[in-house]
Amino acid sequence: MQYHYLKFRPGTWLGWLSVACILVTLLAQQLKAETAPVAAQKNAPLLVEKQVFSLPTFTTFGGKTIENVNVGWEAYGSLTPEKDNVVLITHYFSGTSHAAGKYHSDDAAPGYWDNIIGPGKAIDTDRFYVVSVDSLVNLNAYDEHVVTTGPASINPKTGQPYGLDFPVVTIRDFVNVQKALLESLGINKLHAVVGPSMGSMQAIEWASAYPSWVPRMVSVIGAGESDAWTTAALEHWAIPIRLDSHWNNGDYTQDNPPTQGLAAALMLITQDALTPTFFNQQGEQLGFKNLEQGPLESINHSHSIVGWLKQRALERSKKMDANHLLYLVRACQLFVAGHKQNLEQGLTDVKAKTLFIPAQSDLLLMPYLAQDAHKRLTDNGVTSHYLTLPGALGHLEGVVNASAHADAIREFLKSE
Amino acid sequence: MQYHYLKFRPGTWLGWLSVACILVTLLAQQLKAETAPVAAQKNAPLLVEKQVFSLPTFTTFGGKTIENVNVGWEAYGSLTPEKDNVVLITHYFSGTSHAAGKYHSDDAAPGYWDNIIGPGKAIDTDRFYVVSVDSLVNLNAYDEHVVTTGPASINPKTGQPYGLDFPVVTIRDFVNVQKALLESLGINKLHAVVGPSMGSMQAIEWASAYPSWVPRMVSVIGAGESDAWTTAALEHWAIPIRLDSHWNNGDYTQDNPPTQGLAAALMLITQDALTPTFFNQQGEQLGFKNLEQGPLESINHSHSIVGWLKQRALERSKKMDANHLLYLVRACQLFVAGHKQNLEQGLTDVKAKTLFIPAQSDLLLMPYLAQDAHKRLTDNGVTSHYLTLPGALGHLEGVVNASAHADAIREFLKSE
Repeated sequence: MQYHYLKFRPGTWLGWLSVACILVTLLAQQLKAETAPVAAQKNAPLLVEKQVFSLPTFTTFGGKTIENVNVGWEAYGSLTPEKDNVVLITHYFSGTSHAAGKYHSDDAAPGYWDNIIGPGKAIDTDRFYVVSVDSLVNLNAYDEHVVTTGPASINPKTGQPYGLDFPVVTIRDFVNVQKALLESLGINKLHAVVGPSMGSMQAIEWASAYPSWVPRMVSVIGAGESDAWTTAALEHWAIPIRLDSHWNNGDYTQDNPPTQGLAAALMLITQDALTPTFFNQQGEQLGFKNLEQGPLESINHSHSIVGWLKQRALERSKKMDANHLLYLVRACQLFVAGHKQNLEQGLTDVKAKTLFIPAQSDLLLMPYLAQDAHKRLTDNGVTSHYLTLPGALGHLEGVVNASAHADAIREFLKSE
Repeated sequence: MQYHYLKFRPGTWLGWLSVACILVTLLAQQLKAETAPVAAQKNAPLLVEKQVFSLPTFTTFGGKTIENVNVGWEAYGSLTPEKDNVVLITHYFSGTSHAAGKYHSDDAAPGYWDNIIGPGKAIDTDRFYVVSVDSLVNLNAYDEHVVTTGPASINPKTGQPYGLDFPVVTIRDFVNVQKALLESLGINKLHAVVGPSMGSMQAIEWASAYPSWVPRMVSVIGAGESDAWTTAALEHWAIPIRLDSHWNNGDYTQDNPPTQGLAAALMLITQDALTPTFFNQQGEQLGFKNLEQGPLESINHSHSIVGWLKQRALERSKKMDANHLLYLVRACQLFVAGHKQNLEQGLTDVKAKTLFIPAQSDLLLMPYLAQDAHKRLTDNGVTSHYLTLPGALGHLEGVVNASAHADAIREFLKSE
């Protein structure tokens, strides 16, 4: 492989602006929402509202019981009387169920995949009823638009936050909560399941665990499993939180959280999800020089690029919970399609047609992961397609620029 | 770029064995050394001894004064009467001056580049007088074979370790200490300077700052500068140390050091320096499965691959100092060739013929960095060569398998 990350392409400024929007505005939503009816009118913003799904009791894949499970969800488009037009969108690690549309027409940014979900778009809400659900242990526990259940939730037995008494949950558990929600709506089959990154894990988990539900599966910047490399890489996100004395073995309150540890984790996540090209462009804008005076003067001063990274992380951390991050890391580390003993076994059950869309410059879930799942499925006789996202935004290409393969997604969803 | 990291190549087992040796044995030297005379006999181990160079006072590039600077050094081969056969080897981030040979014939492993330095080898000690020097703020501050001056050294003004009162030092300072040592030996010109990784920064710094000394420069897994990406990536190595409450703003003793933070840093360094191929091979050996019972049972249990990584880090950390790691990170972050305002200016002064040898699979200092310096030098009219190390060990290829280009290095050193 050859990297040419130092070449700046003026044509990508718009892309970077959109990244900035996604990172700063969308992922750390600070907007006041007003409830508005679901609408699928063309030439008008898709207006959406958050709904809440509750389960009095839920048994995890690991065999533990959680009472009073609540998760938020959104839907775009209309369900047919036959209930046969459901596309489920499964979100990424730091994402939420806000995949498309706006809560209010004045919102600064729409949901993260708004450029592929909406009236007439690749995932066409004129045709499909598109559903998206906040995960358990969602990272954005303190976002007013997120409803989730996790370590920050009140344990009914103690009246205090669960902390580490919350059971380990898995990608299968995220899927099982989604399935319970869909069943509550009278749905018993999907048209397709589509997700980026951790959402791709949920998508392929659906296809493996509930093959009769899933005729089509789209994995964007995805993986069929967390291999040893990925499992170790994810651990580095958890470690700073555990080192922060405010973490206190998971026993903290929202008044005194492990902010420094959480911000450190977010700084690393941001770097892992991006590329030299992006950082060096950002450095140019900041006037980054290796030989900045501050960091030469004192070991306690940082370079401007580090300051930028930290400031963003601190800002984002305000709506996030550190324990939730630990549980998300664990869910991803434990992942193998179908939660079988290995990937080969997990993929045996998949009946869906599949479409894998890794990003060429991805340094987090590198393309070999999608390629491996694609090849194994093809070998199993499954119809599988494989397309690579171009661009230099790394993993983030799959969040901000999945529209580069909008036509392929549209055609895939039309296929029999 | 395409990654095929899941393909295991049985032929690389020997390479991995050698990596294990390097990582576990060599980098965390636990061997008792006995002094032995420098020897350059063929058909016998190259036996070496550590020497100490002292400077009563040293002024840093940042303008601060340090008293009583001591560094260890080694030499292999014999200095000609004309003192015109000196090859300087500059070491990597977690390395020491032990580049070749053994302290005792019973040593389990020789110096890190022993496969290219020695009698008849690429850097031929029958011909060259090869010198290697422990850096300032060397990471292995408590290794009996390392002599260094840094935050763990006693501040003559207080009788206590410097801690963060030690001034920020730069790659230029490492070079200036080496230059003072060479001058003390009556040397005023090198035949060549050769270094891997952080050693490549010192090598190109030599070529830029002291062009009349350096007719030949070899950069292995190297860079001409820390760009914004690299500067940010290095910060993640420092952060866990600062989060460890035992770090105490740098004020700790060897009895109660920030071991967890230091180990966390070393875990990340190891991952950054390797690749999915290596980790997945290691996972196979450990019986790694995504769905291990421990991590499913409790959020406080880890996967076997994480345990392996942590155990190695804890073992290595025993000879290392956490503050020294922070200072090494800063020296690397501040680096641009010549410590000029930018790389273009820094390379203008280089007169040396240059040879760049990045590793194709390197995820830490990616090949674009060496390529960029090579291209700029070529554009400046400098004779520059560029060769890529194959193999799937990532950054570590440059430490354990630089011998893949032994012939090219040998020929380059012969060139006029």
